[in-house]
Amino acid sequence: VSQKIAKTPRQGASTATAAVQQPRLRVLFGEIIAIGPGKIRLLELIEESGSISGAARHMNMSYRRAWLLVETMNRSFRAPLVETAQGGKGGGGAQVTELGKDVLRRYRQMEKTAAEAVAGQMEDLKALMADHPPEAIS
Amino acid sequence: VSQKIAKTPRQGASTATAAVQQPRLRVLFGEIIAIGPGKIRLLELIEESGSISGAARHMNMSYRRAWLLVETMNRSFRAPLVETAQGGKGGGGAQVTELGKDVLRRYRQMEKTAAEAVAGQMEDLKALMADHPPEAIS
Repeated sequence: VSQKIAKTPRQGASTATAAVQQPRLRVLFGEIIAIGPGKIRLLELIEESGSISGAARHMNMSYRRAWLLVETMNRSFRAPLVETAQGGKGGGGAQVTELGKDVLRRYRQMEKTAAEAVAGQMEDLKALMADHPPEAIS
Repeated sequence: VSQKIAKTPRQGASTATAAVQQPRLRVLFGEIIAIGPGKIRLLELIEESGSISGAARHMNMSYRRAWLLVETMNRSFRAPLVETAQGGKGGGGAQVTELGKDVLRRYRQMEKTAAEAVAGQMEDLKALMADHPPEAIS
């Protein structure tokens, strides 16, 4: 499972280069978020684990919550992005449909496009940032 | 206070056009989110209301939480983005510095750049979406 979101600075990396741009895209559909970072991550994990419950565990999310996110995605598109095998809620397995894979690819491509588009502006912004990231404040 | 994030579909608008692209940018700095949608919104509201507590109220956020976000922003940049008048925590008022206004402008510009860059891909994605947004599922 590849993690695209840097949770920790690379060790030994200069803190100046540890400032990372992270454009995140949300596609709203009426009042609903049809897809966004969380749903896309869930979709990827379902593809890898072959089940909603496995994906939910990876995300420290309840099965019920994951199922709701899947339902929302499925109803937002012309056809389901995830299909569950008979047996359903219990754990009959789930798979990402061809449409689901297509949506995944398109979403990741859009993220890439957005990141490339703002790269120059991001560099300018970095120049305004402190030499070192602050400690977490609480 | 202008709201850029559509919370409700426009009445009378076709649901197909109610699908709205919303690229959101996060700038990570080490483990810290230096700026993102929430902090930027807070910064705008401090600029408008002249106080951290006023901005916090608008966001249904505790004063303490808002103060922590401001502190994180202030420490992430070379100089503070928000300055509080003496009296401080109580409510001596707060103002967005020139650097803060500059960061705000740059951030909003990056959002615009990202949105424009993905506009075509977003249109293609919309074509895969259902005719109507789903009802909220719970």
